[in-house]
Amino acid sequence: MRLTKYYLPILKENPAEAQIASHRLMLRAGMIRQASAGIYSWLPMGFKVLRRLENIVHEEQQRAGHLPMLMPTLQSADLWKESGRYEDYGKEMLRISDRHGRDMLYGPTNEELITDIFRNSVGSYKDLPLTLYHIQWKFRDEVRPRFGVMRGREFLMKDGYNFDLTKEDALHAYNRHFVSYLRTYERMGLKAIPMRADGGPIGGDYTHEFLVLADTGESDVFYDSTVTDLTFGDREIDFSDRAGLQAIYDEWTKPYARTDETHDDALFSEVPEAQRRQSKGIEVGQIFYFGTKYSEPMNAVVVDDSGQRVPVHMGSHGIGVSRLVGALIEANHDENGIIWPEGVAPFKVGIVNLKQGDTDADAACEGLYKGLTAKGLDPIYDDREERAGAKFATMDLIGCPWRITVGPRGLKNGVVELTSRRTGESEEMSPEAALDRVAQIYAGV
Amino acid sequence: MRLTKYYLPILKENPAEAQIASHRLMLRAGMIRQASAGIYSWLPMGFKVLRRLENIVHEEQQRAGHLPMLMPTLQSADLWKESGRYEDYGKEMLRISDRHGRDMLYGPTNEELITDIFRNSVGSYKDLPLTLYHIQWKFRDEVRPRFGVMRGREFLMKDGYNFDLTKEDALHAYNRHFVSYLRTYERMGLKAIPMRADGGPIGGDYTHEFLVLADTGESDVFYDSTVTDLTFGDREIDFSDRAGLQAIYDEWTKPYARTDETHDDALFSEVPEAQRRQSKGIEVGQIFYFGTKYSEPMNAVVVDDSGQRVPVHMGSHGIGVSRLVGALIEANHDENGIIWPEGVAPFKVGIVNLKQGDTDADAACEGLYKGLTAKGLDPIYDDREERAGAKFATMDLIGCPWRITVGPRGLKNGVVELTSRRTGESEEMSPEAALDRVAQIYAGV
Repeated sequence: MRLTKYYLPILKENPAEAQIASHRLMLRAGMIRQASAGIYSWLPMGFKVLRRLENIVHEEQQRAGHLPMLMPTLQSADLWKESGRYEDYGKEMLRISDRHGRDMLYGPTNEELITDIFRNSVGSYKDLPLTLYHIQWKFRDEVRPRFGVMRGREFLMKDGYNFDLTKEDALHAYNRHFVSYLRTYERMGLKAIPMRADGGPIGGDYTHEFLVLADTGESDVFYDSTVTDLTFGDREIDFSDRAGLQAIYDEWTKPYARTDETHDDALFSEVPEAQRRQSKGIEVGQIFYFGTKYSEPMNAVVVDDSGQRVPVHMGSHGIGVSRLVGALIEANHDENGIIWPEGVAPFKVGIVNLKQGDTDADAACEGLYKGLTAKGLDPIYDDREERAGAKFATMDLIGCPWRITVGPRGLKNGVVELTSRRTGESEEMSPEAALDRVAQIYAGV
Repeated sequence: MRLTKYYLPILKENPAEAQIASHRLMLRAGMIRQASAGIYSWLPMGFKVLRRLENIVHEEQQRAGHLPMLMPTLQSADLWKESGRYEDYGKEMLRISDRHGRDMLYGPTNEELITDIFRNSVGSYKDLPLTLYHIQWKFRDEVRPRFGVMRGREFLMKDGYNFDLTKEDALHAYNRHFVSYLRTYERMGLKAIPMRADGGPIGGDYTHEFLVLADTGESDVFYDSTVTDLTFGDREIDFSDRAGLQAIYDEWTKPYARTDETHDDALFSEVPEAQRRQSKGIEVGQIFYFGTKYSEPMNAVVVDDSGQRVPVHMGSHGIGVSRLVGALIEANHDENGIIWPEGVAPFKVGIVNLKQGDTDADAACEGLYKGLTAKGLDPIYDDREERAGAKFATMDLIGCPWRITVGPRGLKNGVVELTSRRTGESEEMSPEAALDRVAQIYAGV
């Protein structure tokens, strides 16, 4: 993309309403714009990141064998009255009356609707196991929406639901989600720690939250620092291998890691003192096994192999996709702007032309732009008539992981400069070498 | 995908509520399920088609130079009061009151919101031209929702908005949309005819609707049959070439083609009698140039090169993405089910194993499944323990464009059967040849 053809309405001043870095930087970098309280328009660069995260979630869910679908944003209140949650949910649920006066609501979650779909179409244990998910906009009418997309009212979430014949099968589904979530966050360049959590209004004995450590997090977290050393790297994962997934689950849950809701001082004191950490975390996902909590009252049953009608074992599993954009920035920024991890960068590399209009510089930039584009490396070329300082500031603000700086002086020596946004380190090399280096960096992403 | 691992809740009976083919077939083929009146859940196969159409629209919009973004589903009523449309829109607009009693609405369209974004961030003619679009769920509270996704209440639509300095520039944007829409429909395997239309509540002197001919259409259309012979084929299109786009516009608008709203008997009688057609059509898109209708009252101005503040020239341009799924089926089905055009098929090829459990048949099917998957040809393998008739009926119902039938008898002679869903014609060939043939068919799609 050429910046002169793009829509990137950068703000020079820090917006007064933004209290935390991600909110401030998303506004300043022209990623979002508030439409009304807690409701945002995603401008092109913001949408590009959101779509990228959405695609990663789709890929990782399908890798785990889960099936994508899409439920609507508006639901009839009837199913919620049947499950008993219509009254429970309180004012966070946006209640709507349609032109015929029917009670509707903007779905904050989908347990009822998916259970209704299931009970109307699945009748036999032979159709199990089944895990369906969707990525859809949800609404929770927060009293005081704040922190930008981190605590908005309209937000994009992946929610998935497993239907299994037995508790054991459902716990395998739980582990599939546990492992695929860890993989998903790692691929995004995020360190998210699974922590024992509380069931809350969704319920369930087994539940883990996934938290990204950040000073601006709203949850207090307590953990053994060894948990942050765990990574997947190149591990091959077979999502049908129950023992293999259980081993990964055990590996990640062995170190102490809990939110304040489930924190246990006595247990925590057994962690070697040098490894004990207390910090703040941002919740970016949660998984639940809740057994037959919805299937029994809503009569979601299958016939088992002995001909008995039995309620299915279920769980639900969420990833906050729009919130992740904020969490990524909270965990990856400095005073100059965003520092995107390579896996989620909206533009993989920025090209800065130090002297727009100079024949050599223009030609070298065009060559790099075309070369990078041809390799699928999605560059953003700052082709504005601006001074170098403004161009550098823009690249730093929008967080391009790599920048290639092109100027007449360097070109006389046959070189351009390749700079890492994260380390600030620069290296001179030929334009061809810069192109190859960037291709190499992104080959494994 | 293996059918035993998929969620495809096929209905054996014709659902009583479905009056038209697309509604009936989408329910029967397990693509959708009604959540409440005019609101549908998209089950995995339905979602796969919807996502495919969404991606085609994204690709074609970006090819034309338009920038993707995303506006929220819920809007504040304030902007609509400012434009004067809050009262105009009537009961089709779903009005909502949030927990603080603020007036909100579920957006039926986005002229106000996009104009507000524009006026707050763009100030100079140098930032023009600009075309922003999004693909988002909308809501219109139809009195009598019917015909499944063709006239639903919650529906997915692409809407785009151009901002230009002059009328000439805005008409070039109009032509860009005109041409890119024709390309989009052609790529989906649809013949959509652009017809002079009426501005309606959005307004505008220049507007065309794009209609797919189908007996179940709700619009009466009148046209010169030569318009249906026009195609793009392999034409290269340069979206910055004003004269080139104008020539395509002229080519497609020269033959008479109007809806009953703009129909002119006298003009129509000048069409040679043998070419005069009267039919029914389904509207799948509409483009508008409406000048300064929104920019003037909403003060969306830029400073031009003489320093004057001038209102921008705008247009809006919509494609009914969820409706297109229905329109595609209306135009492509027979008594046995759907016949997907290759460009939009949820599964490109179906594999039918005539004798599940037979070592040779199972091995040949596995080989084909892996080979097709490796080539990105997204097969669906019917690996159920079912009789051949039920497997054929399923493949016909879900509309796989190509079917490979594998049985022990054929394999003894080294052959499988490749069948076209559209023509019903079959040919025997080796499994390798069938794989190559399918790859060849999809190479150009």
